Amino acid sequence: VLARGAVRGAVSDLAWLQAMLDVEAALARAQACRADAFDAGAIGRAAAGSGNPVVPIVRALTVAVGDPAGRYVHLGATSQDVMDSAAMLVASRALGPLLADVAGATDAAASLAAGHRGSRMAGRTLLQHALPVTFGLVAAVWLNGLDRASARLREVRRSGLAAQLGGAAGTLASLGQDGIAVAGVFADELGLPEPALPWHVERTRIAELAGALGSAAGAIAKPARDVVLLAQTDVGEVREGTRGGDSSTLPQKRNPIAAVCAIACADRAPGLVATLLSAMSHEHQRAAGSWHAEWRPFADLLSAVGSAAAWLRDCLTHLEIDAERMRSNLALTGGLVLAERVTAALAPTLGRLAAHDAVEAAAREAIASGRGFADVLSEQADVASRLSREEIDRLLDPAGYLGSADVFVERALEAHRALAGEAP
Amino acid sequence: VLARGAVRGAVSDLAWLQAMLDVEAALARAQACRADAFDAGAIGRAAAGSGNPVVPIVRALTVAVGDPAGRYVHLGATSQDVMDSAAMLVASRALGPLLADVAGATDAAASLAAGHRGSRMAGRTLLQHALPVTFGLVAAVWLNGLDRASARLREVRRSGLAAQLGGAAGTLASLGQDGIAVAGVFADELGLPEPALPWHVERTRIAELAGALGSAAGAIAKPARDVVLLAQTDVGEVREGTRGGDSSTLPQKRNPIAAVCAIACADRAPGLVATLLSAMSHEHQRAAGSWHAEWRPFADLLSAVGSAAAWLRDCLTHLEIDAERMRSNLALTGGLVLAERVTAALAPTLGRLAAHDAVEAAAREAIASGRGFADVLSEQADVASRLSREEIDRLLDPAGYLGSADVFVERALEAHRALAGEAP
Amino acid sequence: VLARGAVRGAVSDLAWLQAMLDVEAALARAQACRADAFDAGAIGRAAAGSGNPVVPIVRALTVAVGDPAGRYVHLGATSQDVMDSAAMLVASRALGPLLADVAGATDAAASLAAGHRGSRMAGRTLLQHALPVTFGLVAAVWLNGLDRASARLREVRRSGLAAQLGGAAGTLASLGQDGIAVAGVFADELGLPEPALPWHVERTRIAELAGALGSAAGAIAKPARDVVLLAQTDVGEVREGTRGGDSSTLPQKRNPIAAVCAIACADRAPGLVATLLSAMSHEHQRAAGSWHAEWRPFADLLSAVGSAAAWLRDCLTHLEIDAERMRSNLALTGGLVLAERVTAALAPTLGRLAAHDAVEAAAREAIASGRGFADVLSEQADVASRLSREEIDRLLDPAGYLGSADVFVERALEAHRALAGEAP
Amino acid sequence: VLARGAVRGAVSDLAWLQAMLDVEAALARAQACRADAFDAGAIGRAAAGSGNPVVPIVRALTVAVGDPAGRYVHLGATSQDVMDSAAMLVASRALGPLLADVAGATDAAASLAAGHRGSRMAGRTLLQHALPVTFGLVAAVWLNGLDRASARLREVRRSGLAAQLGGAAGTLASLGQDGIAVAGVFADELGLPEPALPWHVERTRIAELAGALGSAAGAIAKPARDVVLLAQTDVGEVREGTRGGDSSTLPQKRNPIAAVCAIACADRAPGLVATLLSAMSHEHQRAAGSWHAEWRPFADLLSAVGSAAAWLRDCLTHLEIDAERMRSNLALTGGLVLAERVTAALAPTLGRLAAHDAVEAAAREAIASGRGFADVLSEQADVASRLSREEIDRLLDPAGYLGSADVFVERALEAHRALAGEAP
Repeated sequence: VLARGAVRGAVSDLAWLQAMLDVEAALARAQACRADAFDAGAIGRAAAGSGNPVVPIVRALTVAVGDPAGRYVHLGATSQDVMDSAAMLVASRALGPLLADVAGATDAAASLAAGHRGSRMAGRTLLQHALPVTFGLVAAVWLNGLDRASARLREVRRSGLAAQLGGAAGTLASLGQDGIAVAGVFADELGLPEPALPWHVERTRIAELAGALGSAAGAIAKPARDVVLLAQTDVGEVREGTRGGDSSTLPQKRNPIAAVCAIACADRAPGLVATLLSAMSHEHQRAAGSWHAEWRPFADLLSAVGSAAAWLRDCLTHLEIDAERMRSNLALTGGLVLAERVTAALAPTLGRLAAHDAVEAAAREAIASGRGFADVLSEQADVASRLSREEIDRLLDPAGYLGSADVFVERALEAHRALAGEAP
Repeated sequence: VLARGAVRGAVSDLAWLQAMLDVEAALARAQACRADAFDAGAIGRAAAGSGNPVVPIVRALTVAVGDPAGRYVHLGATSQDVMDSAAMLVASRALGPLLADVAGATDAAASLAAGHRGSRMAGRTLLQHALPVTFGLVAAVWLNGLDRASARLREVRRSGLAAQLGGAAGTLASLGQDGIAVAGVFADELGLPEPALPWHVERTRIAELAGALGSAAGAIAKPARDVVLLAQTDVGEVREGTRGGDSSTLPQKRNPIAAVCAIACADRAPGLVATLLSAMSHEHQRAAGSWHAEWRPFADLLSAVGSAAAWLRDCLTHLEIDAERMRSNLALTGGLVLAERVTAALAPTLGRLAAHDAVEAAAREAIASGRGFADVLSEQADVASRLSREEIDRLLDPAGYLGSADVFVERALEAHRALAGEAP
Repeated sequence: VLARGAVRGAVSDLAWLQAMLDVEAALARAQACRADAFDAGAIGRAAAGSGNPVVPIVRALTVAVGDPAGRYVHLGATSQDVMDSAAMLVASRALGPLLADVAGATDAAASLAAGHRGSRMAGRTLLQHALPVTFGLVAAVWLNGLDRASARLREVRRSGLAAQLGGAAGTLASLGQDGIAVAGVFADELGLPEPALPWHVERTRIAELAGALGSAAGAIAKPARDVVLLAQTDVGEVREGTRGGDSSTLPQKRNPIAAVCAIACADRAPGLVATLLSAMSHEHQRAAGSWHAEWRPFADLLSAVGSAAAWLRDCLTHLEIDAERMRSNLALTGGLVLAERVTAALAPTLGRLAAHDAVEAAAREAIASGRGFADVLSEQADVASRLSREEIDRLLDPAGYLGSADVFVERALEAHRALAGEAP
Repeated sequence: VLARGAVRGAVSDLAWLQAMLDVEAALARAQACRADAFDAGAIGRAAAGSGNPVVPIVRALTVAVGDPAGRYVHLGATSQDVMDSAAMLVASRALGPLLADVAGATDAAASLAAGHRGSRMAGRTLLQHALPVTFGLVAAVWLNGLDRASARLREVRRSGLAAQLGGAAGTLASLGQDGIAVAGVFADELGLPEPALPWHVERTRIAELAGALGSAAGAIAKPARDVVLLAQTDVGEVREGTRGGDSSTLPQKRNPIAAVCAIACADRAPGLVATLLSAMSHEHQRAAGSWHAEWRPFADLLSAVGSAAAWLRDCLTHLEIDAERMRSNLALTGGLVLAERVTAALAPTLGRLAAHDAVEAAAREAIASGRGFADVLSEQADVASRLSREEIDRLLDPAGYLGSADVFVERALEAHRALAGEAP
């Protein structure tokens, strides 16, 4: 139900059928194979009998093309050649919309990073206010993760996919002297690289794609999780733009539906990756189960990560930022979030340990009494003798304690521009 | 493609839709809800907008029943009540055919166990001939695993499923004073147990079902794996009955397709179980992603294990046993498979260590020279002075070294009869 | 580093060694086997040579007991009998402290549930304020999950563990006529149930324990996750009691360390469960890898879940509740959290749809203008003509909209008392 | 127990401690930090109190270096900076021996591929004899998978690792204007690349390493699984060289211990990868559990895959090939394994379908009667009129039906040489 975006069409049953037909077509150089003309349901039912969908497809295709072309249908190939090559076509076609949605999400993250360098907010560690950060930096970290995941997926698309043609035992024996030549033309016809050798029982290509998709799922889940946390009623720093998904019985809620769905889709990835990795040790020249076990998780993984990307793009593109609320939340602890800075300012003259103790004592009193941290600090003799109230106020101003946040934002944007500038 | 058996219908999109309607019907006491009358595709598309399929269903159902019944549609419930209760209905309905297929497989295993107590074969450890066993014992171990898995699944079906009704935050507040009473009637209408409290964010029920299905997958994969190994061309001790799945280009092959597909389906279970377990820590009163992440793996797990059971039933029901080949394979090592027994016979008079050394030396020579183990043994002075050739031949007869194999077969059959005799 | 509680000792290398010696002792009726007397390091190194630690243990033990007892060491057993039985002993011994820590956590949850029936707070769905609940109900849901997980673990401890004795191929052949009798005494000596048949290649016992531990991990992670969320600086409704783990450089932080560590330990469970489930299809009479793959995840899973339980017990036992903050947070939305109730009150006279629209409009205006919901409502003609300001104020009082929360708390406490009253 | 090879030392507790000290040293430019001088046990116990091992290390290190250097210990860093950078050092140091063992395994596979181009054997699909292959090709496919996995691991080592320094919230605020410069020097000191931005909550680096290790585990498991299958008593085509691990009670067995242990270690990888991927969505500026959940599986994954590589290297380096047995097994089906070729030879004159039917009929009769396939074929009119007995015998000679096997072997060797020639 949560499948979303163009990736759905790219991994549907019909898309698989078309990919298998394309493989047969490339093989037979018959060019007229359209999945719509075949009965996917009937082929699926027949597949359940023979344990693999290629047998009924070959039969249907042979009938469809008639003689004399029919005699070349499936010639030299084994069922696995068709399924494996079709899987690569499906992956190649699904990665298009998937990468487009990731790119949409990264562009949105880049806009947020560029536009919110000055939006100071509480940096939270273990969900506790720790130090000031900017929302620009938060978005820059999202951006960098998505860009890295995207770069790896592009690399896998470029060099990890490959046609598969080996015949029944990976020797291309039935093609006689022509094996190598046919394999080359076959790969060209499919628009896929020709592998050095058949990979029917050498599954690192599947594993590499799975690993890249699993990593992308995590890179997508990170910003989605942050959005859900920042959108809490109790925090209110961001909000997904109005959409149909708001609760109808609870009109006060602004559910971050897109982020929630992105998380839900991404959370399915690790189990699917594990299943694909577990299936790698194929027996001899064709696996007795491990190969068949790949089909569904392979498509599901593309679909889950593609949908997660589409949801995240939606989420980030329409994200509303409440910079005012960020500022007021940052002030919630009355300056305590700058305690580290005061300690550092006192250390050279008071000594590191004594500085720490003095600040900690002031912090505890401020928390216990509910009074302002600056007030408590300025009443402490050790502190007051070293720092004027003005200096204390300056130290407790978050604007002056953002370290290299801006540099990091700039670096993330630069890396993004560089990546976006590359050939796809 | 490999989905098989009646379980497919029980977890289909239409089955989910019907289950959700049944839940709404139980809630509204409207009795006329048939999934066929609704447009599953349209509801699915609308679901992708709101992040959950219940909203469009409620809308469609309210229109369908008209006034005044319409005002009771969904009253008091939240979307998750409908999805969770529907999930339990789907599970309950899928466990029927699933358990029937497991029962079919266990009955077939019981027949094999009962009928092959005398079919001696090589017991293999680390895939090496180790000691004689009987095929009856092999099948008894399969049987026992399947029976244990089945018993646990029945227990989960009996006591682990439950209706879910809690309203928006698990308090049933919108039902006022009637909450508890309505929840009881609601559960009765669904034919599901009433839980002590709402479990919308307490997911041990999902986890228990997942665990039981994961265990069943392993219990199914074990005999399937053994069948594949015993059916190897090089072993040839069993063979799946003729079916449409034989290779058409390689007519000499007798592919154990049903076993292969059972393995393929079962191998998907561990990753799906992990995903469901990972999704257990729901935030507050409704999870932001973990709940949504459950839907697909929940159905997929029922489908995968149900299909695996159907394939295994098929496999075991038509399994052909070649007891002659078992016997000849057992003789392959020329009696070496009984070396342990000869050692034990020599130990009391020769000493344990010396006996071991003498037998090991004879074994190595037999292997190196290719001569019969009995011949080599009877030429060794230490041995010949203690054991006559007749005694040696008797010791090397596998029929006399089967230990408690028959007792174990009997116990497995007894446990099976006891389990089968229980109420479902 | 995060391993915690008595479970650590129960699954340590030394504990494994002792368990293996206990198994050999039970087998040989030699009673003087203490792991301390053996060199665990040397045995570990020798194990890496032979692929299993039993061979060097048997050698060391035979030397240790001398003659004539030495000749009975390991008699009739195979390495896997020792490892499998030792694994069951380790599990049995680890489940003691693990269940004690779960019991400690449940008792703490029960106290919280009983003591906070009146502590009203915002119920949060998708992390948005939805409806009022009580902290008593929140704790009751935690309690119920932990109690269910605990009950299942106890059940597995009672009926799922078993001794394992089968000899090299599961027939007990080397024990001749005495096999069954020895197996019975062996199990008695170990204090473990005797199984109907050897389970060396029938791993549902491992899977059932894994499933129960995986479910327990989820039941532990749920309250831990809630604590982390409720302890956020921005929420501040709970706080872990002071402990050494507070941040030293950021003195204002009250890190919920115990909850964080509980989550960290629990999050390792699903992957470990998946590994154990994936390893279930053992080949023939001894697996070539799957058995060996179980050892580490089996111990790790007990350790991870046991540590998670110890951390959670620690967390809940010292949890400080800020009921005042709960109340003020609940008031954050100015009554909007009761919007559903106002709609229901208007529906009979205004009509369901019109009531919904009127309340939604008021809610949106209250949010947009920042004014109180009651004020906005009482200015709306449709509403004001039906509800007096007093009635509106009464409807917006969370105390009157808690539904069956109290009943659920009582049910959870009752179930807890019943479970605690059972024999261990 | 199965941990093996130099990787063990590289991921031990002591190795972690040293790595953390190295990180602190790089930070403080203190060069005298040796893990041996610290009490790993005491630090571990203190870590369990504070939820992370860095706090006690910093305390011990500050004491150890004394004044004035002590004041620079940990300056500017947060605990996670130390743990994350140490994890990268551990990975970097573990990848050395791990890649060396993979390289040893690939070299052994290359030797087998080069030396056995002429060793014809049965190609097996679904574990059934399908078509002839050569053992050289089998080893070439192993080689190619290992080389691809190795190349990816090298790439991750080269570009995926990075130092981590961000301070408490990722801004380097406590280092004032020096943050960026210190971060650069810090990375140089560690010999790790400097990342564009802190990655404390951006975990694609962890995921990429995990993915590469998971893929390597599968590439290792594949040849190990094949060795176990080829070493079966019933097949006997390969055998691990004599070693201490042979069964002592069953002297006839030649257990493929190294292959078994390689499988056992590799089978742990998918679950560990899934755990690391599941932990990717870190909350805000420091995760509340997900980060802590990484530590153990990160080390376990390096250890498991490194051990698997060491076992496989051992296995392949000492693998004994029985080319004679390969030949005799290939002849087991009396030429049926060449049925596809006879069909192809008949098709041009008899028609494709009729050829298929004729050959299938002959195959079935040969199987049923136990007679030679050539004999049966030459008695069939349709066949005999087209093929002489000599031609039939030639067609049934496996030596002539190996297709492009040799080309593929050559390609794999070439790719291996190219990869080996690259800089490490």
